[in-house]
Amino acid sequence: MLEHGGRLRAAALRWGIARERWLDLSTGISPWSWLADRAPPISLDAWQRLPEDDDGLAEAAAAYYGAAALPVAGSQAAIQALPRLRGSSRVGVLAGSYAEHALCWQRAGHAVIALDADGIDAAVDTLDVLLLVHPDNPSGLVHARSQLLDWHTRLAARDGWLIVDEAFVDATPALSLADHSQRPGLILLRSLGKFFGLAGARVGFVLAQDALREALAEQLGPWTIAGPARQIAMLALQDRGWHAQQRSRLHEASARLHELMADAGLPADGGCALFQWHRGDQAAALHEALAVRGILTRLYYAPAPSLRFGLPSSEAEWQRLAEALVGRVATRRFDGCAKVMAGRDPPYDRITP
Amino acid sequence: MLEHGGRLRAAALRWGIARERWLDLSTGISPWSWLADRAPPISLDAWQRLPEDDDGLAEAAAAYYGAAALPVAGSQAAIQALPRLRGSSRVGVLAGSYAEHALCWQRAGHAVIALDADGIDAAVDTLDVLLLVHPDNPSGLVHARSQLLDWHTRLAARDGWLIVDEAFVDATPALSLADHSQRPGLILLRSLGKFFGLAGARVGFVLAQDALREALAEQLGPWTIAGPARQIAMLALQDRGWHAQQRSRLHEASARLHELMADAGLPADGGCALFQWHRGDQAAALHEALAVRGILTRLYYAPAPSLRFGLPSSEAEWQRLAEALVGRVATRRFDGCAKVMAGRDPPYDRITP
Repeated sequence: MLEHGGRLRAAALRWGIARERWLDLSTGISPWSWLADRAPPISLDAWQRLPEDDDGLAEAAAAYYGAAALPVAGSQAAIQALPRLRGSSRVGVLAGSYAEHALCWQRAGHAVIALDADGIDAAVDTLDVLLLVHPDNPSGLVHARSQLLDWHTRLAARDGWLIVDEAFVDATPALSLADHSQRPGLILLRSLGKFFGLAGARVGFVLAQDALREALAEQLGPWTIAGPARQIAMLALQDRGWHAQQRSRLHEASARLHELMADAGLPADGGCALFQWHRGDQAAALHEALAVRGILTRLYYAPAPSLRFGLPSSEAEWQRLAEALVGRVATRRFDGCAKVMAGRDPPYDRITP
Repeated sequence: MLEHGGRLRAAALRWGIARERWLDLSTGISPWSWLADRAPPISLDAWQRLPEDDDGLAEAAAAYYGAAALPVAGSQAAIQALPRLRGSSRVGVLAGSYAEHALCWQRAGHAVIALDADGIDAAVDTLDVLLLVHPDNPSGLVHARSQLLDWHTRLAARDGWLIVDEAFVDATPALSLADHSQRPGLILLRSLGKFFGLAGARVGFVLAQDALREALAEQLGPWTIAGPARQIAMLALQDRGWHAQQRSRLHEASARLHELMADAGLPADGGCALFQWHRGDQAAALHEALAVRGILTRLYYAPAPSLRFGLPSSEAEWQRLAEALVGRVATRRFDGCAKVMAGRDPPYDRITP
């Protein structure tokens, strides 16, 4: 199993700090869950009976995404299954991107090629599958839609696939390719985990041509999503007013985090509405220094050391992070790190090319 | 996709009877859910955060089963994944048994051989995998534990597997092989769907040797079970007093159903604590006659026509079924059918050999 963020029980054990005392910034999950301060009734039937796939969830998703969508048990379920739908393929992934993709394609016997952002275009015509997380996790890298569609066209001409994991796109819907998802060979993964703050529900969607959605449904088998999760997901997808409110507060919080990190001498090298990302040789030490203060971030070792920060929500959380970063960490312990990183001023999202 | 019971929305459309007016006997799910009349608090964290596999669910399962157990998203998840853990194999299944097993092994490229109950013993030494549902679904067929262990020993000697789907065993725990589940090549599937009446939670368990559980966990990937479902499952597994009460009322109801069917001239050809099963050429007509009265049963066409009846619970439901079976169906329309089936008096469970 790969390591992931959000393992708060493991962190509690490792650093000897009780689970409830942590400020967990180790995931890209919104601190504002759609379910917060809500208690929609969940029927006993939803727990007792087998979930029925004609319960309206697919329709609610189609209305939200503007495209036909196959419900899956989190986009992870699709990540596991898609590699089994192709014969041996050359699969390009962005170096350093969310590692489950590469792992699952490798495990299924495909050849996985790690690409630099600048090398994607030159590699496309040598690939069978190009797999991008968009915005990328953790780098936040985004591409122009026209660029993505060009790559898709070149791949599809040879029966290739462009898979775009849009787990973090909901706050910036203009970046999504949902409106093109009926094109052969274009496969989009969506999730209710991050933007909706419903990672525990295990609900995601695959937007793709009918035939591919059907093949994937066969591969995944029946009843993959819990009944209560289907009910909650349906309500969340239909709550248009909340979507707008959520987009706005996520952008605001992400910009504030960007600024706070810059003030602490730890400027972000990328990010999106749900996290900011900082590269630096001191990443592991900074991760440790924050952890001993009960602040969990997500540490990456490869391809270069880096840290991803999720969003604080309450003023108390902002204060706690600011004190840890600016007061104790940056100036006292990580002065060297702060100086090394200074002078960089990346845009909120990096756009290529 | 295979057809399954419990598709009440589809039934509502097909027979023009509103969903809430059906008596659904088409599944083997207990009509008494562990969650009925309970409202255990589910934390917002369970919905919002990624589920953590060190939350105590595996320990609660180990205490209930008396053996190490890997939590999976319903035993169906294991049914889909196990065929991917073996090279090309000869897999014996009981003819007419729960069809998802054969489908998933076939789809993964294995050779599936349908066996009659009397032919299992002779076939074992020619198989790589023997797959039994125990008690069988829908026939209720059970085997002596010593017989199962003998088959397992012969298979394991050639690196073969005995897979036993124990989805319906909880009411008769003495039939389970859980206490032997650390033997190499013995794999047991358990589920909270039927006995606990929690089919919508999508929680099941795999009992097997450590190495196999680990390989399966890798195959399934992270976060397959919804956080709220993990919380409910843990509580249900720990509720010992309820387990005893549930076993007792399931046996009582199943015996009553057995008697009611016999009185209606539709004697059961098998069953277990959660359902009774009737074979007969008129099965399709009987299914239809019950459905037009809003009673949904599970119809099987192969290998021979048969009907599976789940358990009614309230007196009103018993009355409704009795009237449909005895009053209208059996004596008026299915006199012929009743006579054909008369004279058979199978035991509650069939035991081979």
